[in-house]
Parts: sequence; structure tokens; C-alpha cells
Amino acid sequence: MTPAPVPPALFTDLYQLTMMQGYVEHGLHTQEAVFDLGFRRRPFRGGYALWAGLEPMLDALESLRFTDGDLAYLDTLGLFRPAFLDALRGWRFTGRVDAFPEGSVVFSHEPLLTVTAPLWEAQLVETMLLNTLNFQTLIATKAARCVLAATSSPHGGSVVEFGARRAQGPDGALSATRAAVVGGATGTSNVEAGRRFGLPVTGTHAHAWVEAFPDELSAFRAYAQTYPDATTLLLDTVDTLGSGLPNALTVARELRGAGHELRGVRLDSGDLAYLSRHIRAELDAAGFPDVRIVASNDLSEDVIAALIAEGARIDVYGVGTQLVTAGGEGGGALGGVYKLVQLGGRPRMKLTADPGKASVPGVKHVWRGSEGPDAPYAWDVLTLGGPPAPGDVVSDPVNPLRAARLPADLHWAPAREVVMEGGVRTRPPEALLDVQARAVAELARLPAETRRALNPHVYRVSLAPEVAALRDRERARLLAT
Amino acid sequence: MTPAPVPPALFTDLYQLTMMQGYVEHGLHTQEAVFDLGFRRRPFRGGYALWAGLEPMLDALESLRFTDGDLAYLDTLGLFRPAFLDALRGWRFTGRVDAFPEGSVVFSHEPLLTVTAPLWEAQLVETMLLNTLNFQTLIATKAARCVLAATSSPHGGSVVEFGARRAQGPDGALSATRAAVVGGATGTSNVEAGRRFGLPVTGTHAHAWVEAFPDELSAFRAYAQTYPDATTLLLDTVDTLGSGLPNALTVARELRGAGHELRGVRLDSGDLAYLSRHIRAELDAAGFPDVRIVASNDLSEDVIAALIAEGARIDVYGVGTQLVTAGGEGGGALGGVYKLVQLGGRPRMKLTADPGKASVPGVKHVWRGSEGPDAPYAWDVLTLGGPPAPGDVVSDPVNPLRAARLPADLHWAPAREVVMEGGVRTRPPEALLDVQARAVAELARLPAETRRALNPHVYRVSLAPEVAALRDRERARLLAT
Repeated sequence: MTPAPVPPALFTDLYQLTMMQGYVEHGLHTQEAVFDLGFRRRPFRGGYALWAGLEPMLDALESLRFTDGDLAYLDTLGLFRPAFLDALRGWRFTGRVDAFPEGSVVFSHEPLLTVTAPLWEAQLVETMLLNTLNFQTLIATKAARCVLAATSSPHGGSVVEFGARRAQGPDGALSATRAAVVGGATGTSNVEAGRRFGLPVTGTHAHAWVEAFPDELSAFRAYAQTYPDATTLLLDTVDTLGSGLPNALTVARELRGAGHELRGVRLDSGDLAYLSRHIRAELDAAGFPDVRIVASNDLSEDVIAALIAEGARIDVYGVGTQLVTAGGEGGGALGGVYKLVQLGGRPRMKLTADPGKASVPGVKHVWRGSEGPDAPYAWDVLTLGGPPAPGDVVSDPVNPLRAARLPADLHWAPAREVVMEGGVRTRPPEALLDVQARAVAELARLPAETRRALNPHVYRVSLAPEVAALRDRERARLLAT
Repeated sequence: MTPAPVPPALFTDLYQLTMMQGYVEHGLHTQEAVFDLGFRRRPFRGGYALWAGLEPMLDALESLRFTDGDLAYLDTLGLFRPAFLDALRGWRFTGRVDAFPEGSVVFSHEPLLTVTAPLWEAQLVETMLLNTLNFQTLIATKAARCVLAATSSPHGGSVVEFGARRAQGPDGALSATRAAVVGGATGTSNVEAGRRFGLPVTGTHAHAWVEAFPDELSAFRAYAQTYPDATTLLLDTVDTLGSGLPNALTVARELRGAGHELRGVRLDSGDLAYLSRHIRAELDAAGFPDVRIVASNDLSEDVIAALIAEGARIDVYGVGTQLVTAGGEGGGALGGVYKLVQLGGRPRMKLTADPGKASVPGVKHVWRGSEGPDAPYAWDVLTLGGPPAPGDVVSDPVNPLRAARLPADLHWAPAREVVMEGGVRTRPPEALLDVQARAVAELARLPAETRRALNPHVYRVSLAPEVAALRDRERARLLAT
């Protein structure tokens, strides 16, 4: 396993640097700032998001330094004074980070991560934080949706990430693979991702392999000869049922005769429901019940669910483009934002005509309620300290007219933890497969109606009375000036 | 300027490596293979794509090597034999690449790039080629669509790339910026991209800046004090017209009194058409006709066009999410493919039930016809050698029933050039702004009806009679076996 490269310090929007110098010149830079990171619009119009990207983000925060080359380049921009550039020499992030553990299920309008740091430190890191967490959370969520669809089949099913050729550059592809694994993908076709993250790497052969031989049967035989214990044959170069399947069966028998077993067949075009049912039946009838059927071709959670509804017999779904580009309605990007909520001990707020875009001032704690340690999650409440009290009237972050009284039977647990203190991790990095295991457990605790892919129930995220009161006071104060 | 890092050799799909070993074991690996790269579906349902990513792809091809660490990792997979791993030591790409110059306008169903190389070399590079060219071409096309919309205003307008926080990781963001510049973006907010590609870097300040001061006017004054010649003020932290604009005018007057000029104001919410018209009028009336209006907020080519249709007075469009994620109908991903068309001097073809997915066998040349050196492009024709002949009946690559006779008055020029020979570039790398200049010239030669953003005329790409005949012969031969 090789470590992922961390982004350079200059991977930031210019205004973060110009604001930093401004804060220094106006004596504000060391004031303690608190920024909340969260999102407003539910990705894929779904009921939840799967929180991902935390470990790479902590790597980046820990190693963030300005090199001499960085400072020399900044000097060429004609914006920065020597004293400021000098102050960046030896600069590092010294703040604290509270966050949901990676792999948690999270919701809109709650602080997923809070940075507490001197203002100029907290400001600089915004671009990198949003870049890492927006993308990985988006892709992990998409992967979870695909995996939940695939595993809903009575025959089971798994998802493998096949997206290298459609992702945003090599490193975009590697980030996408990582996030897909958080969301439950069991492997990848990308060899570098396999190495970097210690994942199973899988593959078959391409159409070109078949075209390189005089005919399909020779091509299949040649592949099986080279990989007698690891052959999955692509059936659709000529005619899936007319030649691909009979040729694969011939090779399966020849392999068995030589003491090996064909591992799988792969479909990459045509009606995957019809073809997989037909092929499963033929394979079973011929005595090959363990030959797996792998399918690909612009798959998504919707397509997987539709295939399963029609009785498709697919064991492995190779999901590429739609996964790594977060395709589908409400996909494409996660609109995470990073908002100043307190400075120098005083709450701060951004007003706006749109209540959904206003920030919630103050330092909040997120409490998650359920009826017991294994019961489905029921309610997230933001407070200014301890857990909410039974009977509290809590309100929607965007519309106070949506208010409700908290029931007495909920147990409350803090949803976030301190993951960084003094610019240093509070615990060793988590292994990717441990994060995946947490995500599996978390998805299992989502209420079924919130986990639903289409038109889910919107999970309740509420403000405790004291948070709503603080917001109202700040709002009134700002409107009065 | 720092060079972009090149992807590692293991950034490839596993099956490329398993096929490579198979080709070696079956004595096929040194046969000369020809692969065509192209796309089938027009991005954004538009009339063209802007070809981008060629230079980074050539960088990657030239530097592709397996390190000892790569080979050690491959050894752990249990698939590769020592002789093969040994053969990868010292391996490099030695082939030839024919391609459209970067920044060309290109169309579906034509070979944009052709690799001619020993089979195992041409096979390995597929994933990296598709990854680089799919993404950059997609984003450059999106950028061109945004820029064409912005520059259609009678008052002019430019596009700046603002997408760092929504792109696929840091390197995804850098690739996106590069492609956006090919498509005509004049700058970026991303400092690292500015350094790497030698681009203007731009920025204003964030809402947090305003919140960090006791009130908006103090915040504006403080920013102007730090950047007297480079201040663009964000107007919407409190109330755009009620406080943002009057406070900005106060600061503009104070700056002028001190011998400086306010550079611009920025809008990030609200009705950008109404606000920009109103603000332009107030700025002009107050004697500030040179203060630029910058706008952002989920902009895309459609939104820009709609704003201009309503008389918006925006000088600079900051386009982020929609640009770097290629949002909109027909966006998200470019489905480029890489198909074997000849091996060992013999044409090869992939058959399929869908004619749009069948490959066109043989080594093709792409000729582009127009009525003269500055006239709009009229027709692309694929031949097996020299230019097409007037009067030839040429046919659509997907449906031979769409056939037409070539007029006599077209001048034909080769559309592609040899960009790599023997694994080495045939000329020095092109500067990014030179590629941008080519793209501007190329977009100007698109027929207006093909350049149209919505429901464009589909540009003609045709097969010369000998190409269609070769395809028909290969098809008949494959169907007969």
C-alpha cells in the first residue's frame, strides 16, 4: 500500500489567501474561529448521505505546509507583502476538528464537521476540506445506493467499481474508488487503487482480446490456458447467446477436464435481465452452478433495481460511469458549504433572503436519538451542549413552523467526536475496510423508509430550543443594524 | 509553472495487464495493432466537442515505466509469471499516435486519435488515454458552451473557473481548470492551477470576511485598505441592494479620493439579471463605469444565456460546479471508447446488435472539407488514404441508408497529424494558451447552426465508399463464421 499524495498548500481559492493577509493586517488572524461544514440539498434526492473523505482530509491537514516554491510563486502575484509571506513560512494548522466518524449516515442541515482554529488557519483550509469531503461523500452515497440495490436480490449480489476511464483524471479515479469502497463496493478494476488501498482487483478481458484471435473459441481457450483458475469470459463480442455462451460452456468443460473451474462470464450489452436468466439456467443445467455472472453497461442503482425486479441473475455488478460521476437526478455534485458560526467567542451568522442558505450561529453539538443501542436512528438534534431534554419543542433548521415535541423514550448519543486536536489526529488513521464496516452497520440502522432510493422519508434534524433562540437573537441583531 | 504529475503505470484496469501477459504467452504481443479512440454520444446534446487532454496524455505516454515497486505489487496478485514481470522491466511505449491537434472541434463517430503500436503496448494504455481525453474533452466542451454564451452579450463577458471545491479531488480540480482554459476560460480561482498552468488567478472575499468585522462597511473598508488596487467586494452577505451596494459605493468614493479605483463587485445570490442591471445603472450614475460586475451562483451555459436574454449586465461569470462536473443534460461523462481496428495488417471489427456500437475496421484518414481556408467547416470524411473525390457517394457511419454525394466545391485538408512517433513527441509540447487560441479559431469555423447550444444541426461525418465497403466485407466475413 502506498500513501495517497496530499494536495499542495496552494490548492486553495485565491481569496482564502487574500483574506488571510487581510486578517493579519487587521489583527484578526489569531482570533478563535469556528466554522461548520454541512450540505443543504440531499444528494440523489435520497434520504441520507454516507460521510466519507475524513481520513484523506486529516492527512492533508496534518501535512499542510508552504514550501519555498509556494512562497516564491505567491510573491509573483503582486498581492502579498513580505511580512505575510514570511508568516507563512513555518505556518501549520493547529486547530481542532469535531466530526462524524467516517462511514456515518448523515443528513442535510447539520454540522458534519466543525473546525475550531485561529481565523487565518480555519479560513485557508476551506477549499481543500470542501473538495475532499464533497466528492467522497457524494460517491460513497452513490455506491451505497448501488450496493443496497444489488444486495436486495434474493440471490445476493455485489458491486465492483469499474470507472477508471470516465473519472476526473487519475487521482479523481483513485478518490472515487476509495469512496466507492466506503459505500460498500467489494473491489475495483483499477490496479493502482488496489495497491494504494489494499483492495481486491478484478477483471476479465476486453473485446480486443477476442478480435486478436482467429475466432472467439480460440480466444476463450487461450485466455483459459493462461489463467486456468482466474478466467471470466466476455460473451458479447460476436453474439452473446449464439456464440459467446456455447463457446464459454465448451471452455468450462475443457477446464474442468483439466482439473480447473471457469470462474465467470461477463455481459456488457443487450437485455441483461433476459440474458442473465437464460445464461444462469443454461450454466446450471450444464453442471456449472458456481460460474458467476458479471454484468456491466452503464449500470446505476435504478438500473440494478429494475433488473432485480425482472428476476435478473447477476452475481457481480460492474458499475463505472454512473458511480464515479455520481450520475442521476440530484447527483453530479454535493453542495457542501463551510460557514463561520463563531469568532472570538461571539456567534456569527450570514443572513440571506433564502432561509435554506442562512447559517445557524453558535457552537453546536449533534445528538442522535434512537429507542436503543440497536434500534433505528430516529432523530438528530443540535444543542449548545448536553443532550436534548424529553419534551423539548425542537424546530426545523429551515422553517421554525415545522416544530415538534421530543418523545420521552429516545436515548441520545453524541454523533460526532474530536478527530483532531492541536492540528494532530486524536487516534491512528482508520483502515478503509474498517470504515466500510462502519458504513454497513450505519446503513442498517437507517429507518427503512429513509433508506428507500426513491421518495424517501426525510429524516428529522432539529434545532434545540436554545439553538433556535440564539439564531433568532442574532438574526434580530443583524436586521437592526 | 510546475509540471503536472504523470499517472503511475499501474493506473490501468487489471484486464489490460492480464491481456498483455496472455498476448505474450500466445505470441501476439509484438503484432502491430491499430486502435481508434472516439465517442458516440454528443456531449450536452450539442453539435460538437472540443478536443482536449492531448498534451497531458503525451506526457504520460512518454514517461510510462514500471517501477520495481509496481512489479513487486503485481507479483502479489498471483496472476503474473516471473518472465512476464521481467519483460515489463524496461518496457516503454514505442508506438505512433495520430490525432487531431488539441483544441480542435471534433464530432461523434470519427477517430479522434489512432494508436499504432505493438499489441501489448497499445492495449495497456487504453485506460489512461480514455481517462485523460474523456474528461478533458468533456470539460473543455462545457467551458466552450459557457464562453460562447457569455460572449454573445452585446456588452461582452468572460468566464472564470471557480470549481475547486466541487471537483473530483485536488488533481481532478486541476485537470478541470486546464480543460476549462482550453475551452476559453480566462482565469481561475485555484492558486495551484494558476501556478501549474501559468494562468491569471482571481478572487474576491467570502461572506466570512464580512462576518469577521463589526459591520459590512468596516469589512469593505478593511479589504480595500489591504488591496487598494485589487478589491472586488461581495455584496450579498446582508442585503445586496439595501446595504451591499451603498457600502460598496462609499468605499469606491473613498478609494478614488485616495488615488485608487474599486475594481469590481460580486453577486452570489438573488436575481442576477435584475440585480446586475440595477447595480450597473447605479455604478454608472455614480461615476464608476469601469467597476466590473462579477456574478456566480450555480451558473451554466443555459443560465448565462437566459441572463443575457434578460439584459443582465455581468462582466465576469464565475462558473464552478456546473463546469467542473459537466452538469446538464447529456453531461456528466463523455463515453469515449478505444477499439481495435487492425492487427498484423488485417482489419478487425467488433460486431454487435447495435450499429452505433460496432467499430469501423481498417486504418482511416480523416479529411475535413470546407469551401475555403476561412470558410466554415462543412464535412468530415473518413478514407483509407488520400482525400475523398468529388462526386463520391459517402455514407453515415451508423446508418448506410443516410448517404449523400460529395459536392465538387469543397477543399479537403487532413484533420489529424502525427503527434508521436517511436514513443516520442514529434514536436515540443504546446503552451496551454496556444491551445486556447486554436480552440477560439476552431469554434469560429463551426457553422453557426452546429455551434448552437440547443438542438443544433448535426455536422456531417461520413465514410468514403472504400471504408464502407471494407466494413461490409468484414461484417459479412464475421457473420459467416
